[in-house]
Formats: sequence, structure tokens, C-alpha cells
Amino acid sequence: MTVTSPSGFVAGAVDAGIRRSSVPDLAVVHSTRAATGTAMFTTNSVQAAPITVSKAHLSVSQPQAVVINSGVANAATGERGELDALATAAEASRLLGLPVEQVLVLSTGLIGAPLPVAKVRRGLRELIPDLSADGGEMAAQAIMTTDTAPKSASLATNSFCVGGMAKGSGMIHPSLATMLAIVTTDYPLEPGEAIEFLRPAVAESFNRISVDGDCSTNDAVILLANGRSGGPRDDESFAHALGEVCHRLARQIVEDGEGASILVEISVLGAASTEDADAVGRQIAGSSLVKTAAFGRDPNWGRVIAAAGAARSSSGNARVDAAHMTISFNGTKVFTHGRPTNAQPDMTPNTLMIDVDLGIGNGESQFLTSDLSYEYVRINAEYTT
Amino acid sequence: MTVTSPSGFVAGAVDAGIRRSSVPDLAVVHSTRAATGTAMFTTNSVQAAPITVSKAHLSVSQPQAVVINSGVANAATGERGELDALATAAEASRLLGLPVEQVLVLSTGLIGAPLPVAKVRRGLRELIPDLSADGGEMAAQAIMTTDTAPKSASLATNSFCVGGMAKGSGMIHPSLATMLAIVTTDYPLEPGEAIEFLRPAVAESFNRISVDGDCSTNDAVILLANGRSGGPRDDESFAHALGEVCHRLARQIVEDGEGASILVEISVLGAASTEDADAVGRQIAGSSLVKTAAFGRDPNWGRVIAAAGAARSSSGNARVDAAHMTISFNGTKVFTHGRPTNAQPDMTPNTLMIDVDLGIGNGESQFLTSDLSYEYVRINAEYTT
Repeated sequence: MTVTSPSGFVAGAVDAGIRRSSVPDLAVVHSTRAATGTAMFTTNSVQAAPITVSKAHLSVSQPQAVVINSGVANAATGERGELDALATAAEASRLLGLPVEQVLVLSTGLIGAPLPVAKVRRGLRELIPDLSADGGEMAAQAIMTTDTAPKSASLATNSFCVGGMAKGSGMIHPSLATMLAIVTTDYPLEPGEAIEFLRPAVAESFNRISVDGDCSTNDAVILLANGRSGGPRDDESFAHALGEVCHRLARQIVEDGEGASILVEISVLGAASTEDADAVGRQIAGSSLVKTAAFGRDPNWGRVIAAAGAARSSSGNARVDAAHMTISFNGTKVFTHGRPTNAQPDMTPNTLMIDVDLGIGNGESQFLTSDLSYEYVRINAEYTT
Repeated sequence: MTVTSPSGFVAGAVDAGIRRSSVPDLAVVHSTRAATGTAMFTTNSVQAAPITVSKAHLSVSQPQAVVINSGVANAATGERGELDALATAAEASRLLGLPVEQVLVLSTGLIGAPLPVAKVRRGLRELIPDLSADGGEMAAQAIMTTDTAPKSASLATNSFCVGGMAKGSGMIHPSLATMLAIVTTDYPLEPGEAIEFLRPAVAESFNRISVDGDCSTNDAVILLANGRSGGPRDDESFAHALGEVCHRLARQIVEDGEGASILVEISVLGAASTEDADAVGRQIAGSSLVKTAAFGRDPNWGRVIAAAGAARSSSGNARVDAAHMTISFNGTKVFTHGRPTNAQPDMTPNTLMIDVDLGIGNGESQFLTSDLSYEYVRINAEYTT
């Protein structure tokens, strides 16, 4: 049920001593045969050193292995950070017998702290000989930071398999520098094709949980495809499976959101355009007032209306008119065509569905978020640099 | 020290029974002589009924009086809401002997609830005969909702005076539908001039505390000028005084932010442009992670860098490079030119100054925000529709 579910992938993890507690903190995912792949990275102007190195490698070669450490983000670490990231890739490439450009590197953890590269090298020497087809779950554990549970998913069809792991537990802004996901498949892809499949899958999954459009210095999603399945191509089926695995990972990230007690599913219908629907959904999902109301199990449709009305797309205000709006909480209409219904929705479930019909056109959009709780404040106030 | 400080203005408030508790909840501000004026309203697509009515009145006439109620926002109330707002203006105009178009109306409180217009009318009949030059403080109290203190300011020069009152205590998104401010002056302005003075004053004050660019369905700032001072014009001096009164009111709103325990002053220097500086300052001020760190008294510069890097202006990513950045907390440099200093800033004061020098150009910007505390979550989770 993870990155090693598809054929021809091995993985593993080790306690390299990067994090203070003795937990696995260094992971490797490796395709045992030549692979093709791609990655999508943070759009933050400040990019961590491993992002810079991985981008450079992807620009000249196809990836075949990924090294990920937790504990230190290797961000805002200047030239030394890049040398450390490169040294990590170089040591892994030597041990795996691959050109260095075929190794990608990712880091998650504290911003500003230097990567303890000697520990990383030593850890790789211990870990790489032991990589196995059983190592995926261990790898998923090693990439956790404030995550309370590892996040894995896979989906197999008759002819191929897609597997993945992810980490990330900050929700409003991904916290501690990071949302990471590694997705593997034995489906055959030609070089250059991977991004055409990954882009729409990410747009419909991970980009619908990064609730205010922000992303950290280290966010990354990597796809590796090694063609090992040997079956015939069925691109529609592969796109569906890839989308589903990304969606399941994204959902796990929200469910494990910092301090999350309620999963909030926001559905927008009837917008003038898809762009408007996205803008409205993103604004509702990012509203601290909607999220605190969810925590308080309060069907506060007034805050939903106010957030919807504040939505801006790249072409200006989204078209929103309260007189045409219908809002439901957990399936009960609380506001319809401009009027409150005074109906009392059931707010006891741990999933809150907010359905907003703008009543204007055919644009639709879905977002996932979590509530804003005391625990969110505690985690982020007590975590110190 | 409030709206009645300038000559020729009277005000007052009454308990009209709109709010459940027995507190003043209906206020009037009136210029006893012909005035000129203007207003700036929320850019939210969903606009409350009083905003619609006030806009219509301003489009045909100069304002001379403002009626404000708390308790009910008269937002998302459809056609009935507009009739109720108009009926409020009509009753006040009759009692004041003014054309209805010279009366503006504002509301703050619950979204969706209908305005109890009979109570409002009765309240106006009780209140308007008693308006006085001493009534400003009472009016400032009557417009409070979750505010814990009334907000007033004034500044007098040798020749004129500017006074004002405001309300608003939600910070991340202005809560309960509202930031309201009424600014009065006895400085002489010609019809049409007021907006030229108000626009820059608001841009440098109230628009620098609406931390994520959002605003509610009811936000409004009104300026009334009656020329009573009789002195010579000194536009530079007036612009300065108006800016200062707006700034003081804006600062009081942040200090009284929901659950605020720390006032956070963000200063951005060295940006490639003013637009970039604004984008970076706004992103830092809106970051839940920066705000929870402030609550935890944690000098977490990593979160400041991540927020700065995520800043977008209308022309794309703001130019941010960690290698050129210098960050100070309360005057102590914690990060300079891409490297942490390991210095320990004093985090005990109840005001936190975060200074960010991007080290690229000459763009500057300032923002005010509050921390994100347990109390913020409590207030917004417990408040029910």
C-alpha cells in the first residue's frame, strides 16, 4: 500500500541521527531498473537547497532514486546548503551505482539549520545495501515531522500499480516547511510524458488542500515510472489511478492537519466559471472564521457567505450574489436563494460537508481543509526555532 | 477625543433593544450645518443592505448625518434588508429635517438576521432630540460588538480639528461583519474633494490591518467635513491630521483584535518596489504560523522567510532572496544576509517588532497585526449564529 507496491521499486529508512529523538529520519526510494519521471516543486521564491539540486538534476536526466531526510529542511542555508544537498545525492549515487543526476534529494524540518551531511552520508552507507520491496512503510515513517501517522496509498489494476507516500501536517500554510509526496508506478511512460500526467493529478489533489495558495520552501511531489508492469498502455486508466492515489494522500494530509479535529469538505457548484468556483472554494477553505466555526460545530453560514463574497480570481472578484446562493451543512439547507431556512443541521459528525451553490452558472470545485482548533495554536506556538 | 471633537458635530446613542443585552446599540452622528463628505466601502461581492443604500445616497447628495446600529449586520437579507435600511434613513431624515439622501446608514453584527426596524425607528425618535456635542463617546460605545473597548481619536491644530470613532475586533478576517469608522472634521472641503483625502489616509491605515486583503460584507469608512473651523486651508496639514487619526483608530482595532495578546508591527525595507514591499508585509501579517509564533513568543524567523517567499503581487512573485535578507525581532538581528546570527532577541514586550530588509531595492511598507491565540479560537468557535 505504498511506494514499494509497484513492481521494481525498493525503499527503506534508517535512524541517521538527524532528528534528536531516535526515530528513522533518512529514507531512500529506488527503482531497480531505469525509470522516467518528473517532479513539481514549491512556487515559493525562497527554495530550499535540495529543491535547487533536484531541479538541476531533472533538467539533464531521468530520475531513478530519491533521498529524503526529516529533521532539517536545508532551507535558507545558502551555498553551503546546496553543497550539502549535492553531497547527499553524490553519496547515494555512488552506493546505488547511478549517475548523480539520476538521484533527487528532498528535506523537511527546521528552516535555517545546516544539514548534518556526515550523518547523512553514514546513514546512506548503512541504509542503501538494505533497501527492499518491504521497505516502503518504513520510508513513509521516516519522512514524518509533526505528522502523527505515516501516509501511504496505492491502487493496482490488472495491468499496473500506482503507489505513494506523503508527509505534511501543517494546513493553513504547510508548516515546518513541507508537504512532500513520492508517487511510484510500474506503468510505462516515455521520457517527457510524466509531467503531463502529474500536473492534472496534483491540480485536483494536493493543490486543493494548500488552502490559501501558499506553499512552503520545500514542497515537492515526485513521480517515478519504471515500466516494469509490462502490460499494454491504457492512459485513461493510469491517469485515473494516479489521480486517486494523489487524492488519497492529500486527504490523509488534511486528516492529520495540525490540531485537526474535523475534516471539512467544501463543494462549490453553480459558479460563473471553474475559475470562480476555485476562487470561492479556496477562500472558504482558507477562512479562519469558517475553520473556527467548524471547530465549534457551529453552522455559521454567514461566515461562508462573507468568505465567498471576498473571493478573487486572477480576473477580479468572483461573481457572487447572496440572493442566488444556497448553502448546506452536512446535507441540510441552511440558506436558500438569499434567505436563511432556520433548519438545524446535524453538526456532530467529524466530517463537515459545506455545499455552496452560487446559482449562477456551471462552474464546480472541491476543497478539503481542517478546522482551526486550540491544538493548532498550541502546536504552532510551542514549536520553537 | 472623538467624532464630536470638531466644531459643529453632535452625536449620541441609545439602547434601542437591537442587541439582547441592555447596552446602547444605536448611534447617530450629525453635522449641525451643511457638510460635504465621502465614504469607502467593502470590496466584498456580498454587500450589506445599508452599504447599498448609503452608496445610492452618496451618488446623488452630500452626507450630513450617519445612523449606525450594532447587533444586526442587515447583510444577506435581500430586498427586505434594503427597505429596512431605507426606512432607517427616512426616519432619521424626518427627525433631523434633512433630505433622506443626506443620511447614511451602517450596520454591524449578525449576518442574515433581519433589522428590527420598528425598534430602530423608536430608538431614533428617542435619540435624535438628545444629540449633543458631548455624545461622541456614547456613540463610540454603541457601535461595539465583540470589541472590548470603544475606539476614538482626534487631532486638533490651531485652525481645525479631525475626530473619529471606529469599531472592529476581528483581525484575520474582520469578524462579525465589520470594521466601521466615522471620521469628522471642521476643515473646509469642497464637494468631491473628500475622497481625494480619504483614499490615501485609508490606504496607509485601515488597509494595512486587514491582514489578508479580505474585508467583510459591511466594512465602511465615512468622512464628514463641515468647514465650521473657518480657518484658511492648509491641505498638507489636513492630510497629515486625517492620516494620523485614521492610523490611531486602526491601531486601536488591532490592539483590541479578537484574542490579541501581542501587537505585531511589521516593517519591510529594501524591496524591489513598493508593491513588492506591500505584498511581503501583507503575507507576513496574514501568516497563521507567524501569528502563532508571536503568541508563543518564539522568534521564528524561518516562518517569516517562508511567508516572504510566498508573497505575490499583482505582477507575480515578489522578488525575495534569502541570501540578501536581514530579519530583526525587537531590534535584534536574528538572520542577516542569508545566515542565522543565533542572537536571542528579547521577546517579553507586548509589542513585537519584526523588521525585514529584503536587501534588493528601496521599496518600503508597514503592517500591523495581532497574534493568533487560544482566545481567538475560543471567541470564534463559541460565537454561534
